Amino acid sequence: MADVPKRRKRGGGRAGNADRRGRAVIDQMPWAPPINLDRPTEPLNEAGVLAIHDGAMRILEEIGMQILNPEALEIFRASGGCTIEGEKVRMGRDFVMEHVAKAPPEWTITPRNPERAITMGGRHLNFGNVSSPPSYWDMEIGKKVTGTREMCANLLKLSQYFNCVHFVGGYPVEPQDIHASIRHLDVLYDKLTLTDKVAHAYCLGKERVEDVMEMVRIAGGHTHEEFESGPKMYTNINSTSPLKHDYPMLDGWMRLARRNQGLVVTPFTLAGAMAPVTMSGAVAQSLAEGLVAVVLAQLIRPGACCAIGTFTSNVDMKSGAPAFGTPEYMRATQMTGQLARFYKLPMRASGVCAANVPDGQAMWETSNSLWSAVQSGAHMVYHAAGWLEGGLIASPEKFVMDCEILQHIQRYMDPILTATGPDEIALDAIREVGGEGHYFGIQHTQDRYTTAFYQPYLSDWRNFEAWEAAGGVWTAQRAHQVYRDIIASYEEPPMEDSIREELGAFVERRKSEGGAPTDF
Amino acid sequence: MADVPKRRKRGGGRAGNADRRGRAVIDQMPWAPPINLDRPTEPLNEAGVLAIHDGAMRILEEIGMQILNPEALEIFRASGGCTIEGEKVRMGRDFVMEHVAKAPPEWTITPRNPERAITMGGRHLNFGNVSSPPSYWDMEIGKKVTGTREMCANLLKLSQYFNCVHFVGGYPVEPQDIHASIRHLDVLYDKLTLTDKVAHAYCLGKERVEDVMEMVRIAGGHTHEEFESGPKMYTNINSTSPLKHDYPMLDGWMRLARRNQGLVVTPFTLAGAMAPVTMSGAVAQSLAEGLVAVVLAQLIRPGACCAIGTFTSNVDMKSGAPAFGTPEYMRATQMTGQLARFYKLPMRASGVCAANVPDGQAMWETSNSLWSAVQSGAHMVYHAAGWLEGGLIASPEKFVMDCEILQHIQRYMDPILTATGPDEIALDAIREVGGEGHYFGIQHTQDRYTTAFYQPYLSDWRNFEAWEAAGGVWTAQRAHQVYRDIIASYEEPPMEDSIREELGAFVERRKSEGGAPTDF
Repeated sequence: MADVPKRRKRGGGRAGNADRRGRAVIDQMPWAPPINLDRPTEPLNEAGVLAIHDGAMRILEEIGMQILNPEALEIFRASGGCTIEGEKVRMGRDFVMEHVAKAPPEWTITPRNPERAITMGGRHLNFGNVSSPPSYWDMEIGKKVTGTREMCANLLKLSQYFNCVHFVGGYPVEPQDIHASIRHLDVLYDKLTLTDKVAHAYCLGKERVEDVMEMVRIAGGHTHEEFESGPKMYTNINSTSPLKHDYPMLDGWMRLARRNQGLVVTPFTLAGAMAPVTMSGAVAQSLAEGLVAVVLAQLIRPGACCAIGTFTSNVDMKSGAPAFGTPEYMRATQMTGQLARFYKLPMRASGVCAANVPDGQAMWETSNSLWSAVQSGAHMVYHAAGWLEGGLIASPEKFVMDCEILQHIQRYMDPILTATGPDEIALDAIREVGGEGHYFGIQHTQDRYTTAFYQPYLSDWRNFEAWEAAGGVWTAQRAHQVYRDIIASYEEPPMEDSIREELGAFVERRKSEGGAPTDF
Repeated sequence: MADVPKRRKRGGGRAGNADRRGRAVIDQMPWAPPINLDRPTEPLNEAGVLAIHDGAMRILEEIGMQILNPEALEIFRASGGCTIEGEKVRMGRDFVMEHVAKAPPEWTITPRNPERAITMGGRHLNFGNVSSPPSYWDMEIGKKVTGTREMCANLLKLSQYFNCVHFVGGYPVEPQDIHASIRHLDVLYDKLTLTDKVAHAYCLGKERVEDVMEMVRIAGGHTHEEFESGPKMYTNINSTSPLKHDYPMLDGWMRLARRNQGLVVTPFTLAGAMAPVTMSGAVAQSLAEGLVAVVLAQLIRPGACCAIGTFTSNVDMKSGAPAFGTPEYMRATQMTGQLARFYKLPMRASGVCAANVPDGQAMWETSNSLWSAVQSGAHMVYHAAGWLEGGLIASPEKFVMDCEILQHIQRYMDPILTATGPDEIALDAIREVGGEGHYFGIQHTQDRYTTAFYQPYLSDWRNFEAWEAAGGVWTAQRAHQVYRDIIASYEEPPMEDSIREELGAFVERRKSEGGAPTDF
């Protein structure tokens, strides 16, 4: 990290008067994206899987999808497999399945630090930061405020700091103090310098998409050919449910498909609002919307790296407000997992809640959503740290709290916990202790005690009296302190000076050209 | 409920100046103990199951268990299947398995209100209140205080009020303002009048056990013969790990076995302290300790209704403090579930945490433990509502918060969530809405919206601004208000006057006789 001082001069004062105490603010688990050992939870029997598949296929065959992008429409038309009326595209199940089958069941995204590559598919499980909230809340501010570049950068630092965050999704908060025309340039500069993990591009117009791809290419030190040899980044698009894909999302989707980058499509099908009130209907619709995008990608590049996402939840039928981490959400996620396996596509799920502050509700809703992601066999879990208020607020305390749960999941998937060899059954130790004494002092314990159990960085396991004597601090407040300590001692991952310069020059040039057009 | 005013005179002023607004303080789910639809999570393959079984058997064969009860020792001796040296009993696996096989895989406990019967075994899932904390904490008091009868009664009222609490375990807090000699009489009087759900007896000396059985018999209006025709109540005993069963626990166990009541044995095997530091070793030891008690019960009454409990967790290896709801805890619970099925015994697990206050940590630890109970196929989940500080504190706010999670689980197990019939796939509704509009107004939604989704009583799904305008109340504080409202409007379940009088007379007589002997 010899370049850090240089970087700090060049990068400006964003790191503030950071107290460089090194990176060991907390004793966290090492980088090790978990392998999901559990058989997925499968609420559907085979007939149920086929019923949802049939529903998705009939939606595509009989009802059709509106494709609000002429270029995409032309690709569907040229395929010879679709019926097109105006912007409505219908396609038969054989055609769908033929093209979906071309998508690889497993693929890898390699960021600028190849050691941070993540694999989509198989039993791989990867967690990402909260993405895209317009607002921010922390305990010091104590109210909901508009996101800024500094808040965004701080959340990027958390995303890099925590080894249990495996990829960096969208902007962890929307930095509204940067003009929309150049926002992507500044945030991607921050993201690519403050982190070395897998990055993401929003599909919000060709200039932004192309700029981000170019910046990721520069950050990785790749030639164009190397960049296109396999995914170095990804995008996530949402359909405009019900049954529509809009222009910019498909435009970006096609641009990334052409350049062989990662493609995740996640319909936002709120049951009772943008999808049927019945969960299997909402899942069927979500799949139909997702599969259309997968087919499009395969038509552009057979073998394009696609994943199908779920964001199916329910609304509060009293108010219409979206709800997250509900029982219905859990089941929809698990059902989508079954169908993703049916289609042999990697899957994305989320860590979400409706709570407004990082309290008990936030944790039971987030626990429900994160564990249902695990149970669904999801490979990519978006918003896994930092999300509040149905995605409208990013919170650093919530981020720090969620990472404790992510570490639980990571540890839970360690095969040592359920190993049953003679050393683990430990008959000799049991014989040694017999009916007297305890296990603290024996050799079997001494040999293992430093690594035998999960060690939390945020949970306080002291008894009430000791906890009270230390100030009686509740979890969210403890998380606030961890957040501040991490930011204060943050050290950027190394980056070659020449690459940093090239990246900076690119940003300056594109800014001087006016960035991306905006509607306002 | 015509007897309520009479009871209130008779029962004294404990209910305070309650505002009787009826029972609809919250819109909760009806009484309906869930049927666990999910395939259990099984971290062990067949070889792993057999390795733990072999470990448990070798503990019983080679190391043996100390049985600190002469009567129990004599029963083991008389069986002809055990090797006994002093108080140490060893037994072969054929003998163990022969007797364990006599225990029924499924049995029912029927309390004074037969509609509140619960079934142990099969896919049945039942939740019980926190049991046995010496201390109490609520947001108004704001500190840890010694339990009283009033606190205990209030927690019993919560246990009765919430339909998602299916049985009443031990004292929800230890009422230390009642002398230990008569405490069981007063608390059981409260429990049996304030609730009509399955009750429990502590095995703390023959007088207490016999008194409680008699009071449950009276409350149910049973003859002695009826009482013994099948379980009307149950006990839970803990071994004194490692590898010991003490006198009073076994004494009570045998008394209940003779009278055909429910028997749950739950070793408290903290890995690294009272059991091996390796989880499968701790589980093997726990099973060995539990199976000895099951064998004893079967020797007394072949077919005695037994269940095996797990309380295997880990300690904090820095401090020795017990930890709960950890990844290790989850896996130990799931492994025990696999072995319980191997032995064809119903299973008990718990809802537990190490947190000192009802905050974020409390909720992620409790979520982990409750969901792992579900994943283990447990039939009885102790401490499922109200537990803090590793079981040293009972809290009404935590109780109210936990019940929201219990309702999640109950709703999650509703087959309607994953139904895939034509009405649920809802192709006609999807066709009707097409690519325009939304689903709020259509008939398919209108027909279902009142019951389509889980409706929380505590989660606040309003957006931040509406939540803030309403006072910006965090979850624990909202739970406090729900708790107060429930207590203020609490109505007891009906009980015939003659039974109440008989129960009261029994208590008075036993008090006049001095209750149970105490050591102090």
